[in-house]
Amino acid sequence: MAKSFRRMARKVGMPPGSLVYTGDREHLPAIITITRYNGYTIVERQFDSFKECQLAGGPGEVTWINVTGISKVRDLEQVGECYKIHPLVLEDILEVGQRPKVEDYDEYLYIVLNAIQPVAEGEELVAEEISLILGPDYLLSFYSGADDIFAPIRERLLQAKGRIRKMGADYLAYALIDLVVDNYFVELERFGDQVESLEDEVVASPTPQTLRDVHRFKNDMIRLRKSLWPLREVIARLERRESLLITEALGNYFRDVYDHTIIAIDTVETYRDILSGMLDIYLSSMSNRLNSIMKVLTIIATIFMPLTFITSLYGMNFKNMPELQWEYGYFMVLGAVVVIALAMLEYFRRKGWI
Amino acid sequence: MAKSFRRMARKVGMPPGSLVYTGDREHLPAIITITRYNGYTIVERQFDSFKECQLAGGPGEVTWINVTGISKVRDLEQVGECYKIHPLVLEDILEVGQRPKVEDYDEYLYIVLNAIQPVAEGEELVAEEISLILGPDYLLSFYSGADDIFAPIRERLLQAKGRIRKMGADYLAYALIDLVVDNYFVELERFGDQVESLEDEVVASPTPQTLRDVHRFKNDMIRLRKSLWPLREVIARLERRESLLITEALGNYFRDVYDHTIIAIDTVETYRDILSGMLDIYLSSMSNRLNSIMKVLTIIATIFMPLTFITSLYGMNFKNMPELQWEYGYFMVLGAVVVIALAMLEYFRRKGWI
Amino acid sequence: MAKSFRRMARKVGMPPGSLVYTGDREHLPAIITITRYNGYTIVERQFDSFKECQLAGGPGEVTWINVTGISKVRDLEQVGECYKIHPLVLEDILEVGQRPKVEDYDEYLYIVLNAIQPVAEGEELVAEEISLILGPDYLLSFYSGADDIFAPIRERLLQAKGRIRKMGADYLAYALIDLVVDNYFVELERFGDQVESLEDEVVASPTPQTLRDVHRFKNDMIRLRKSLWPLREVIARLERRESLLITEALGNYFRDVYDHTIIAIDTVETYRDILSGMLDIYLSSMSNRLNSIMKVLTIIATIFMPLTFITSLYGMNFKNMPELQWEYGYFMVLGAVVVIALAMLEYFRRKGWI
Amino acid sequence: MAKSFRRMARKVGMPPGSLVYTGDREHLPAIITITRYNGYTIVERQFDSFKECQLAGGPGEVTWINVTGISKVRDLEQVGECYKIHPLVLEDILEVGQRPKVEDYDEYLYIVLNAIQPVAEGEELVAEEISLILGPDYLLSFYSGADDIFAPIRERLLQAKGRIRKMGADYLAYALIDLVVDNYFVELERFGDQVESLEDEVVASPTPQTLRDVHRFKNDMIRLRKSLWPLREVIARLERRESLLITEALGNYFRDVYDHTIIAIDTVETYRDILSGMLDIYLSSMSNRLNSIMKVLTIIATIFMPLTFITSLYGMNFKNMPELQWEYGYFMVLGAVVVIALAMLEYFRRKGWI
Amino acid sequence: MAKSFRRMARKVGMPPGSLVYTGDREHLPAIITITRYNGYTIVERQFDSFKECQLAGGPGEVTWINVTGISKVRDLEQVGECYKIHPLVLEDILEVGQRPKVEDYDEYLYIVLNAIQPVAEGEELVAEEISLILGPDYLLSFYSGADDIFAPIRERLLQAKGRIRKMGADYLAYALIDLVVDNYFVELERFGDQVESLEDEVVASPTPQTLRDVHRFKNDMIRLRKSLWPLREVIARLERRESLLITEALGNYFRDVYDHTIIAIDTVETYRDILSGMLDIYLSSMSNRLNSIMKVLTIIATIFMPLTFITSLYGMNFKNMPELQWEYGYFMVLGAVVVIALAMLEYFRRKGWI
Repeated sequence: MAKSFRRMARKVGMPPGSLVYTGDREHLPAIITITRYNGYTIVERQFDSFKECQLAGGPGEVTWINVTGISKVRDLEQVGECYKIHPLVLEDILEVGQRPKVEDYDEYLYIVLNAIQPVAEGEELVAEEISLILGPDYLLSFYSGADDIFAPIRERLLQAKGRIRKMGADYLAYALIDLVVDNYFVELERFGDQVESLEDEVVASPTPQTLRDVHRFKNDMIRLRKSLWPLREVIARLERRESLLITEALGNYFRDVYDHTIIAIDTVETYRDILSGMLDIYLSSMSNRLNSIMKVLTIIATIFMPLTFITSLYGMNFKNMPELQWEYGYFMVLGAVVVIALAMLEYFRRKGWI
Repeated sequence: MAKSFRRMARKVGMPPGSLVYTGDREHLPAIITITRYNGYTIVERQFDSFKECQLAGGPGEVTWINVTGISKVRDLEQVGECYKIHPLVLEDILEVGQRPKVEDYDEYLYIVLNAIQPVAEGEELVAEEISLILGPDYLLSFYSGADDIFAPIRERLLQAKGRIRKMGADYLAYALIDLVVDNYFVELERFGDQVESLEDEVVASPTPQTLRDVHRFKNDMIRLRKSLWPLREVIARLERRESLLITEALGNYFRDVYDHTIIAIDTVETYRDILSGMLDIYLSSMSNRLNSIMKVLTIIATIFMPLTFITSLYGMNFKNMPELQWEYGYFMVLGAVVVIALAMLEYFRRKGWI
Repeated sequence: MAKSFRRMARKVGMPPGSLVYTGDREHLPAIITITRYNGYTIVERQFDSFKECQLAGGPGEVTWINVTGISKVRDLEQVGECYKIHPLVLEDILEVGQRPKVEDYDEYLYIVLNAIQPVAEGEELVAEEISLILGPDYLLSFYSGADDIFAPIRERLLQAKGRIRKMGADYLAYALIDLVVDNYFVELERFGDQVESLEDEVVASPTPQTLRDVHRFKNDMIRLRKSLWPLREVIARLERRESLLITEALGNYFRDVYDHTIIAIDTVETYRDILSGMLDIYLSSMSNRLNSIMKVLTIIATIFMPLTFITSLYGMNFKNMPELQWEYGYFMVLGAVVVIALAMLEYFRRKGWI
Repeated sequence: MAKSFRRMARKVGMPPGSLVYTGDREHLPAIITITRYNGYTIVERQFDSFKECQLAGGPGEVTWINVTGISKVRDLEQVGECYKIHPLVLEDILEVGQRPKVEDYDEYLYIVLNAIQPVAEGEELVAEEISLILGPDYLLSFYSGADDIFAPIRERLLQAKGRIRKMGADYLAYALIDLVVDNYFVELERFGDQVESLEDEVVASPTPQTLRDVHRFKNDMIRLRKSLWPLREVIARLERRESLLITEALGNYFRDVYDHTIIAIDTVETYRDILSGMLDIYLSSMSNRLNSIMKVLTIIATIFMPLTFITSLYGMNFKNMPELQWEYGYFMVLGAVVVIALAMLEYFRRKGWI
Repeated sequence: MAKSFRRMARKVGMPPGSLVYTGDREHLPAIITITRYNGYTIVERQFDSFKECQLAGGPGEVTWINVTGISKVRDLEQVGECYKIHPLVLEDILEVGQRPKVEDYDEYLYIVLNAIQPVAEGEELVAEEISLILGPDYLLSFYSGADDIFAPIRERLLQAKGRIRKMGADYLAYALIDLVVDNYFVELERFGDQVESLEDEVVASPTPQTLRDVHRFKNDMIRLRKSLWPLREVIARLERRESLLITEALGNYFRDVYDHTIIAIDTVETYRDILSGMLDIYLSSMSNRLNSIMKVLTIIATIFMPLTFITSLYGMNFKNMPELQWEYGYFMVLGAVVVIALAMLEYFRRKGWI
């Protein structure tokens, strides 16, 4: 969380529109993939910097420029010049810590998404940013992470699966967004399993580690929520097709992604409620355990304190203690001890303590 | 909960509109029931697959096709072709984990409902999905469960009870929705009884099991709520008759179901509030019990520790201990013991501990 | 709470509009009171069933038919036929568990209210239903309870108090609603007194019973709230005079009742907040008590354990224990005991424990 | 709180518009002050009852009739007749327990405000009602309290401070409302100081009294909130100048008061949040203390129980106990005692308990 | 917090528009900086009082008058006269405790902002007020603090960095607002680091100081939130360009600041949620510790009480105690002691206590 502010804070006092990379991945090589396709042909080329600005595709041809590992200001400036992109947009693309949003610049739509990345067990969730610039026949996508997140889409393009090759740049944007939303489900599934097993643990045998897990999941849910709500808004605006860049045929498709987002939000809220409930259960079972510990102590003390008093009584060294001289004094004390112990046990049994 | 994501996750990266069954009931045989009726005649036939596509009913005739145990992609594709249903709708029908919604596709309305299924004591609530496709003179219904949930409606159709035979496909849809909402009440009644007896238990003699029951009910309420709120929205939209497929006469009927949904939501919220209150009561009575346990311990310790000290004092072996030689030393100690014990008891009585 | 569902559940699968009484008061005799009045004359008659359907009153005459103890389906059907009332309305009148609502059927308004009934100390709040059907010159009122709740209104009619005899059926409806709202205040006053005395109790000397009372009041508040919010909405709609059946002159009157409803809701919310605060106080004072109990125990143990150790030390039977032979050994031990005890007490005094 | 309902309940069943004083200040003498002013002259007279009805002031003259200690129904009726005030308004003026509201009766505006009265330390907050009736060139104000709350305004009028004498009755109403809102700040300042010192107390040395203070302040905040929210709404409506009785020039002034109300609400909400946080701190520090108490007990018991066991062992009277005959047996036991005690202390030191 | 009310309360009863400085910085000297610039030239002069009123700048010239350490009523009055500013605005500028707002006075916009000031570790957050008056070609800025908060902007103006010198007074206002929002991020970054380290502390080794830190951060978050929400609203209104004083080109810039505000609010809410979660963790780990303390006590007591009882038994002085005469009696007791102790330890090991 804090990392994004560290970068933003670096820029305080600088004029807006200054292109400064605020992430921590300067070392990553940029990979620029340019894909041009229509229903019949597809050409894909890969570069490590943006060299040429070849705008015109053939008629009905869609150009997709995907930049992975964005950190070179120079490349971005060239892309910006080539596609006439507003300096504030370029600044946003470089800035880490953006929340999902859509901005309409008439000639193109600027869309920011957060992609949830699967992390190793016990680590915090990481959200990588994806910036999309959707023009009438081109789509620019910038991804801050290192992996090839859009590989399944590229596969579908190459194999001409589904209707993706027959439709425009807006459908391609939809496919990318759909993929991002689907990734949330992969993560939520993992959470679902863990929350379930955590629930069993809390009820059966909670440990301090259980508590820390509940806490960590709650924080993850807070983060997921924070990135899902604006995502929902973005997709709602795309579904309403406020921009002419989204063709009518895509309304139903975006409605479908929208439904998925709602289900994801619902699930996150449900998990939050369930996790909150677990905390109560945890505290209650701690309290329960304390009670049972104290019962053991009280039972022991209540039985042995009076007994020790009696034996201690007859350990006194008074000259004149008649009972000490009785033939069966000792055995009577032994008897009394047994009777008292049994009476105490019966008392606790009736109280339901044992 | 988690199950639906497991299925959805299976589809990541696939083109939208791919028909894949995401439930876990592949083994169930599909039962397709086609009912054609008007005010005078009714014909009901049952198949195990969808073979013919006979669209035209007689004038004023309503066709109801009910598919139970939907898992065969093939059947669904045929139904889709026959009634010209959008691929995304077919995809949604197969997808488990949908939330209630209504979508207007001009020629038909696509309605998704969740039907609460009664479960055995101690199990989690299960919501089965029902998809309805309402056309001008036909209704397609798809049910993911195994049982014949619509049997009472079929009965009413056969016996021409009420006005169901005299009205159109929209009334039939209303009757199905009404039945689904009524089933919520059956479940809520069961909950009401259990919540009441749980309340008595919490106040009288709470056990860790009580706590787990409260927790489970709270989660059930979270789930019911999650499925009732969108259901309310669906019915509100049907009541406003945004689609021409709902005739004016049905406005009052949908308002009636809407009222029922509101009552159900109200009740769920009330139960949630009451269950939350129970947790407080539980924690408080745990705390109460701890206090009374500690009182027992403290009383015992406070009485016997000083007494044991005294007896232990006179158990010392000093050569020169004048009291030991006193004729009535022992009896004075006995007296002191009784006096101290009584004083302590009186002290605790005044403090209100005993 | 649960009772209403038990009845509703009875009707699952029946066609809508079926007249079934779902309450538990079948044994109550129905009392039908017909009152006809204008500014000059008033006639009141009482029946035990609805026999005639005499619609036309004289010009400017208002007809008020009040049915107490509604349970006979037959009577209701006759009333329904006579005044041409929609079957769904008749069904709603018989159904227990309705929430306040107003429905406009053009020729008449159908209004449902919940009347709070005073209950004996310690019992749960009961809300009885009142159904009003307001036509242009008649008012039908159905009351599910046994008592004559509308007696004060009848009195005002007979004695021509205020402006009630000079105004139409809508004013009569207003008077009934005003009475229902006023009854909430009687109940809230009672609650106010009890909450105040409960507050003193929680602060001064809480017992488990206090906790149970707080819990019960909280549940009562949940119930009151549940019935007040929709009531507020009903009166707001009447105030806006969406129906032509409410004459303009009544706007101010309904605004007045509306204000009262808002005050009642405000009060319920305030009580809820105060009761929630009490729970915290209760838990905190339990925790306080535990602390003071444990202090007693710790003080006793900390003083007597070292002392008993010392005496026990000199109770050992070693052959060679020089101190035992000292002339003043015993008195030195006694002195040490007093010094240690005083030092401990001083220590606890400084810690603020005693 | 409860007091207002006691009065309201008194009126159940009476026809609306009945003038009944529902407060508890019947003993207070009414003081009626009539002030007539314009930019040049000002006349102020005081009566103990309303005798004449002299409506017409000179052109540009404003008439302010202030009634303090309203309880005489007779006076109010005369005022009502003279200024043609709706019976429901008169009823509301007499009724204690009103919430802030504004009602437009075309010829005049009826405004209800709650004025916070400073109370002695430890008492509950009291809100007195102020009713304003604002006509085109007159302002009637009714105040339920005993003190001369409007003295500063009267002073400003007499001394012609600021622009008050140059402006109309609406400005006078604004000045009164501004004064009422300013009084909230006096109270909030007092609260601020107390909350701050309470915060120090909770953190440093909480006692049960601290808890009760937190509880009392929370209830005060609930009450303030309850009276500030509707006040905000009242001023918002005045600012929007929905009535023609508010001249355009006053828009900015009411916006200013509105801002103050928002700041007051903000502050109340902030105090509520801070007070809620204090409860958590209190509970946590109680829990902390319990832990430290239990540590003392455990340390003492853990050190002395084994020691006492050892000494008790050698206090046994067996014939054959070789150690007892050893020359240095006693000193070895003494040594063991010291070693064990030191080991225990080291153990607890390592555990961080001492 | 409370300080602002202390000042406001000072003004109760004074006519509105009275210029009274309500801050506590009377001792600060006022510094008035007048900057005039266009794309080509820039002139900056500094005064300690406002002497001349030179309105007209050259065409396309922007005048920026910045007043730091505002406390001299005289200066403000002169500024007010010169630029024809409404008395209520002047009053607001002097008043401490304003919340962010924007008011449109046609000829100029009045904007209030709160600037977060970095404070030393452990102190409370302080928000200083900034008042901006934006006219068509001038900007007046008033800052209540002592430091030169706008230095970076002045630097950019002098060095003609970015487009600031080429644009109008509205861009200058934007630059100031952007700076204020950026300062929030500096503060949030600091918080982020502290919250993270606090989180580790709560989980690893919470102390009462941890709790106090959590409490203090929560209060800081409450304060940040209180100043961020209205700030967001202010910027939203500027972005919508409701006033003609904001030129169209600035829409995108204000949208950018708006996004930043949203991210800041999001972060504050996230921190609040996380801090709330920490309190639960704290309480739970306190409860955990208590349990482990009590386990130690119970284990010790349960082992040594029975043992001490046995030894005490054979310390009795009865004449007839056969065991005492047994040759190996003592050793049998020693054996029993070891066996009992081991059995107890095994019991606790099985219970999972050790």
